[in-house]
Amino acid sequence: MTDSSELEPGTAGAAPAQSGHHNLDPHLNRYAARTAGMTASEIRALFAVASRPEVVSLAGGMPNLAALPLDTLSTQMAELIAEDGLVALQYGSAHGVPALREQICEVMAMEGISAHPDDVVVTVGSQMGLDMVTRLFCDPGDVVIAEGPSYVGALGSFAAYQAQVVHVAMDENGLDPAGLTEALTQAGRQGKRVKFLYTIPNFHNPAGVTLAVNRRAEILEICARHGVLVVEDNPYGLLGFDGQTYPALRASDPDNVVYLGSFSKTFASGLRVGWVLAPHAVKEKLVLAAESATLCPPTLNQLVVSRYLATHDWKGQIKTFRENYRERRDAIIGALEQHMPAGCSWTKPDGGFYVWVTVPEGVDTKAMLPRAVTARVAYASGTGFYADGFGSRQMRLSYCYPTPERIREGVRRLASVLESEMDLMRTFGNVTTRAVSGPQSPSPDTA
Amino acid sequence: MTDSSELEPGTAGAAPAQSGHHNLDPHLNRYAARTAGMTASEIRALFAVASRPEVVSLAGGMPNLAALPLDTLSTQMAELIAEDGLVALQYGSAHGVPALREQICEVMAMEGISAHPDDVVVTVGSQMGLDMVTRLFCDPGDVVIAEGPSYVGALGSFAAYQAQVVHVAMDENGLDPAGLTEALTQAGRQGKRVKFLYTIPNFHNPAGVTLAVNRRAEILEICARHGVLVVEDNPYGLLGFDGQTYPALRASDPDNVVYLGSFSKTFASGLRVGWVLAPHAVKEKLVLAAESATLCPPTLNQLVVSRYLATHDWKGQIKTFRENYRERRDAIIGALEQHMPAGCSWTKPDGGFYVWVTVPEGVDTKAMLPRAVTARVAYASGTGFYADGFGSRQMRLSYCYPTPERIREGVRRLASVLESEMDLMRTFGNVTTRAVSGPQSPSPDTA
Repeated sequence: MTDSSELEPGTAGAAPAQSGHHNLDPHLNRYAARTAGMTASEIRALFAVASRPEVVSLAGGMPNLAALPLDTLSTQMAELIAEDGLVALQYGSAHGVPALREQICEVMAMEGISAHPDDVVVTVGSQMGLDMVTRLFCDPGDVVIAEGPSYVGALGSFAAYQAQVVHVAMDENGLDPAGLTEALTQAGRQGKRVKFLYTIPNFHNPAGVTLAVNRRAEILEICARHGVLVVEDNPYGLLGFDGQTYPALRASDPDNVVYLGSFSKTFASGLRVGWVLAPHAVKEKLVLAAESATLCPPTLNQLVVSRYLATHDWKGQIKTFRENYRERRDAIIGALEQHMPAGCSWTKPDGGFYVWVTVPEGVDTKAMLPRAVTARVAYASGTGFYADGFGSRQMRLSYCYPTPERIREGVRRLASVLESEMDLMRTFGNVTTRAVSGPQSPSPDTA
Repeated sequence: MTDSSELEPGTAGAAPAQSGHHNLDPHLNRYAARTAGMTASEIRALFAVASRPEVVSLAGGMPNLAALPLDTLSTQMAELIAEDGLVALQYGSAHGVPALREQICEVMAMEGISAHPDDVVVTVGSQMGLDMVTRLFCDPGDVVIAEGPSYVGALGSFAAYQAQVVHVAMDENGLDPAGLTEALTQAGRQGKRVKFLYTIPNFHNPAGVTLAVNRRAEILEICARHGVLVVEDNPYGLLGFDGQTYPALRASDPDNVVYLGSFSKTFASGLRVGWVLAPHAVKEKLVLAAESATLCPPTLNQLVVSRYLATHDWKGQIKTFRENYRERRDAIIGALEQHMPAGCSWTKPDGGFYVWVTVPEGVDTKAMLPRAVTARVAYASGTGFYADGFGSRQMRLSYCYPTPERIREGVRRLASVLESEMDLMRTFGNVTTRAVSGPQSPSPDTA
């Protein structure tokens, strides 16, 4: 199997020890073929340093929970255990708590989805939903079409099932329909089995763009015509900064879309409550897959979410989150405009957590990362969001977690590191760096 | 793919609708090969009926939580959110909360295990641990050796990764070392790649037996000699009715044993907090696999367990659980002795949740199940615990959940159903039933 340290030139200093360690693994010849594809996310080796308080982390995707009403939640939790503890602490079904599945349908209705609670399966975060859908559909070598860049956790799941990812480019209006058609046609010509399109239509992670409404029907039509399922991942849909929502793909094609939802960004990530809404026949298999994966999602967590939705002004809470994130988006965009050197460009998200930055040719964001961390700012380098080695000129900046001042300070530091990098380039020419390929496993710091 | 309803003669009444439904699945040709192996657990179709209050369910593996100190837990939960809510509700690492991993090492020390917290990975119940270990090691066609019968949830995970299960018989002293040697030798002769022995040494689910201490070194030696890993699943180890514990296999072979633990039976199943203790190199890969499966286990649940262990007399609580289960074990064994017809035999568990019953030749426990449920008693028929169609003369009775009186009443009803069945046999001869094979997905009602 491939030594994962070989895929991490950005952490070359740690490679010999890692490599030596792996060679000593007595179980090396016992692993499944898929295990060779499991490699650590790029930033992991730097995480211990990057998480020091003096470092401004623009790398993580941790939601900012400071606005949560902890007193209310504390009381709700106490009441839940006192009133319904024997249910909350007991096994449930792999399908999920019925009352919560009904409430999930109400949440989805905000984006135009009309669904039956029976077709909702509660999962341990939508990461588990993603993993289960891939488990159901992907044999080794099957193709998944995904935006380029795409969510690092999705690439990790696809790799775990040995699926091959074909990226389709986005522009400021999201996934390019012509590129999608071309990718599907080419895969067909090559005799490849394309299983699904994996797409994040709203406030894309990591790209920060949203699929234009007038492209949505076209994307659905293309996939239907090619006999390809659509997996719609929508964790950020309710976090549009003007309170706007977009019609879910699932809303107009219930039979060919598997929809992934999550409470991680609209309520609390540490509860790990997400869901899959699937066509009925798929849902039955999904429940079986989920049983073999975790038996059932934690009952406690489902009841906490259900009680919160039933008794709290959750829509008001989402509005508060949105306003916090908008303020941070304004801070990062303002700072980028003010400080970034010429030749850099970035997306302008109108919702969600992320800005996708492209730096001048010759700068390698992964090679630069240790220097950035030394300068007390961290980001997620672009190659982690591609399965094919692309992305060395890109980086993802997350504005979700730090305060606006910290964000501005972080961008100032980043701009200064970039300037030095570009100075070096002008003096010594481009430094050739090794091409890096392969998806990385997600981790909360880059998710 | 195989229509799962074909595997369920016991629920034949529901088959036409099921079958018709599956044929209408527009996604039928899109599933992965592994999805064909996902079938519902036998009792699922009967569950709606079996869970009616008038039915005594000896089918489920739900722990009896009535003894839990809900007031204390309610207060602890409220304090946790008030004091540490922003951590409890936030993403954590896939590795698990460090303080909890240290406490887990203290729990394992009770069974002779000396481990470093770094080698512990927290999982969403030990079902997820099982699934992750199988993901790491099993390519399609690889062999897993398991006791026959074995835990239904393990068979579900093995099927999900298309591993082939070879069963080795047990006697009243657990797994038979000679049988293990034979199975390994034969697999080697057939050129099969055996990846691990999956074993539940203590208070076996479903067999109710315990691996004799003098067999433990022998089993480890046999596996080491054949280059086969041992996966030790030990959810019931602290539930020995006399307070006795047995030395964990992991205690004497840290390098070749992957150990699975759980708080589901010693604290609360609905929290879904389990763990894997693995050799160091395996642990690193396990964390990567877990990231692609769920990103991280719920932080809230880990902190609830950690606080409970730190502030509550958890050993005293386990003693209370043990006493409750011992009382129920006494009730079921007494009732079996009093009521069961001649020709039946059963194991005598000295810990855990289950009695394994063998009925006279000619009685098919799966075919009998609908009649038992009509007579207001439910059990888990034996074939679900084998991957190879064996078990039609066996059934698992769980005494963990109902009250002792209900248990006695349930056994009375079951004995009467068996008597009728045997009467019919004497009158009409054996009824030939279809052979049933293939593992079933676990579900909380049979887990």
